[in-house]
Amino acid sequence: MADRKTRIVMKFGGTSVADLDRIRNVAARVKREVAAGNEVAVVVSAMAGVTNQLVKYCQDLSPLHDQREYDAVVATGEQVTSGLTAIALQEIGVSARSYQGWQIPLRTDDQHGKARIESVDGATLIAAMQASIVPVVAGFQGVGPDDRVATLGRGGSDTSAVALAAALKADRCDIYTDVDGIYTTDPRVVPKARKIARVAYEEMLELASVGAKVLQTRSVELAMKMRVRVQVLSSFASDNILGGDLPGSLVVDEDEIVEQEIVSGIAYSRDEAKITVRHIPDRPGVAAAIFGPLSAAGVNVDMIVQNIGADTSSTDLTFTIGKTDLPRAKAVLGEHQEKIGFAELVADADVAKISVVGVGMRSHAGVANTMFTALAAKGINIQVISTSEIKVSVLIGADYTELAVRALHTAYGLDAA
Amino acid sequence: MADRKTRIVMKFGGTSVADLDRIRNVAARVKREVAAGNEVAVVVSAMAGVTNQLVKYCQDLSPLHDQREYDAVVATGEQVTSGLTAIALQEIGVSARSYQGWQIPLRTDDQHGKARIESVDGATLIAAMQASIVPVVAGFQGVGPDDRVATLGRGGSDTSAVALAAALKADRCDIYTDVDGIYTTDPRVVPKARKIARVAYEEMLELASVGAKVLQTRSVELAMKMRVRVQVLSSFASDNILGGDLPGSLVVDEDEIVEQEIVSGIAYSRDEAKITVRHIPDRPGVAAAIFGPLSAAGVNVDMIVQNIGADTSSTDLTFTIGKTDLPRAKAVLGEHQEKIGFAELVADADVAKISVVGVGMRSHAGVANTMFTALAAKGINIQVISTSEIKVSVLIGADYTELAVRALHTAYGLDAA
Repeated sequence: MADRKTRIVMKFGGTSVADLDRIRNVAARVKREVAAGNEVAVVVSAMAGVTNQLVKYCQDLSPLHDQREYDAVVATGEQVTSGLTAIALQEIGVSARSYQGWQIPLRTDDQHGKARIESVDGATLIAAMQASIVPVVAGFQGVGPDDRVATLGRGGSDTSAVALAAALKADRCDIYTDVDGIYTTDPRVVPKARKIARVAYEEMLELASVGAKVLQTRSVELAMKMRVRVQVLSSFASDNILGGDLPGSLVVDEDEIVEQEIVSGIAYSRDEAKITVRHIPDRPGVAAAIFGPLSAAGVNVDMIVQNIGADTSSTDLTFTIGKTDLPRAKAVLGEHQEKIGFAELVADADVAKISVVGVGMRSHAGVANTMFTALAAKGINIQVISTSEIKVSVLIGADYTELAVRALHTAYGLDAA
Repeated sequence: MADRKTRIVMKFGGTSVADLDRIRNVAARVKREVAAGNEVAVVVSAMAGVTNQLVKYCQDLSPLHDQREYDAVVATGEQVTSGLTAIALQEIGVSARSYQGWQIPLRTDDQHGKARIESVDGATLIAAMQASIVPVVAGFQGVGPDDRVATLGRGGSDTSAVALAAALKADRCDIYTDVDGIYTTDPRVVPKARKIARVAYEEMLELASVGAKVLQTRSVELAMKMRVRVQVLSSFASDNILGGDLPGSLVVDEDEIVEQEIVSGIAYSRDEAKITVRHIPDRPGVAAAIFGPLSAAGVNVDMIVQNIGADTSSTDLTFTIGKTDLPRAKAVLGEHQEKIGFAELVADADVAKISVVGVGMRSHAGVANTMFTALAAKGINIQVISTSEIKVSVLIGADYTELAVRALHTAYGLDAA
């Protein structure tokens, strides 16, 4: 008796299905996997631009629109692509049919507009695959407890794909996008950046959240929890479909990575802003007095450093937030100035956060020191430092971003030969 | 205890929901009916142009695409409008929610792409209305026996609305369109055309099928069968929504029309072509030999006249078909020329069919004669005549269309004062 076939979930993002030619290209890639003897399920996003148009309709009609109606409207983008992709597959001789969330069903909670997946019934899709029919699933959507369409929030198609891969016990979840893998850093900044063959879930989470916008963070969290092996690869590369895809990057469990580098990659983000609150009384409760109101206003604080001020009865507090939250944060702190008792607020949006990431750090000392030495050698001033088990981040002047990324990429031996 | 509220289904076509401003206008009209104390359910079409784009996608990918996938793709147009209309209603303080076919459910047969409605469960929508929520139903769609989305064919939203009105036992089904009612003839041809206050179902069927393209024929058939009172009115007229809508035209049972005109309207169609098959043997079975192959090729034959030929052993046969079928009909007859045994085939696409329609004809003689006299007075030659209980149609040269329509409109006393 033959072994079970290799089962693959293939997910294609908005740029990969942007027009009919791209959809035909997707169909050809799917056909190739089927012809290789694999069982395949497909997940598709909306055609690029469609979702934005639908979101705009809702916002223009009502800034505070009913999220349940927003979901009914916006989910149509993926429904269209799933039907068109099924037609494109049939046209080249591959049996296929589209599935919407409610037809699977893929059940979510009731948080319309940003719902979380609660369960995926794999039986229907597995039966289809075993009957040699390729299911083409509309990503980004499921059905809520109210039997209404619910969407998973922007970028949710990655999460759909990973959840389906888990439910189908797929051997791999291939995420096709417009880049051909995860790189040691942004190749536009460092031409010598290398594609990483295997990256651990936890590394990917750090890389994703600090600037390498390849996979949605939620999808990586889910992949880690469900132990789904995710491959990132390009739907644009090797359009000679006879040649097969170039291998992408695999996001897998740490244990699957035999030769672990100490540092896997260098990420950067220019989406941060720095706030320094000066001359606050140095007494218990003052941090809560500052961060309580910010939290209540939905402002997320990232790095925090407390400095010793000039006179010992007062102190300075520096922290970073998302750049878009800066006006709101300044307003909130201004309202509470008397209660907190600070003298002055200094904001700086002209900063960048640079992070070195690697699960190998856990067992290696000196990683941070290599960073500080490399930056000092280039005369780059470090404003704030924060560390985690597998990451060291520094805040520097935004002008130094590329210089710092290149220096660190070399210092950690990541440059391609 | 109060009487049951008046229950109205309001249906808005593609031009009535063409953009966000039109959708806001629809919401205002619905609000007015709700404010007047009525129970209202709304049915919407796709925004004008959207369905054509989606159909084109399917056709471009595969001329013989899977109709089930076509349905999944094309039905999204109405889904978007239903969600947007619900948002627009909520924005002006009217509780509303969208419904897709599968959520009602509105069940159809398995003829994807041109499905027929099998049942409509009114319970969910009635419960919504009784809870003062306006259901906004995506028209043109239901769910097939395979639990997949099924569409009703072009113009199917009218049929959705009538079927819902029957299921909800609505007092009236208001079809909002870009004309403000049914006219005695095309007002572009006859400026003195009058709006008809009440027209019988059977008259409407004749008027719709011969050129007055206001209501889809299937929706009128269904309304007649289910005894749904249909009102046609404009969503463009009287945009001063405080003023209320002008009354439209009611399509009702013959019995509801007290002062029945003999002739209700004059319709015309330029979509016909005439074929004359000359010198065919005058023997039994020859008509079947001609019309059998045409029927097998999907060519619909309308009027038929058999002429006596010059010599008595042969005859001529003249009939009309849709203009778009002409090339196919010529090809089919050419293939069968030997078998049928005709000498010559003469085709003429330069014809028009003019019809006078009225249920009052049943009890009045002389209607056809008035027609022939009026046309003769203008020197218009009649090529073919056909009659039914409530209609007399003639085929004439296309150049004479307007002249004939105007002459008949006057002859039957239909001109406005």
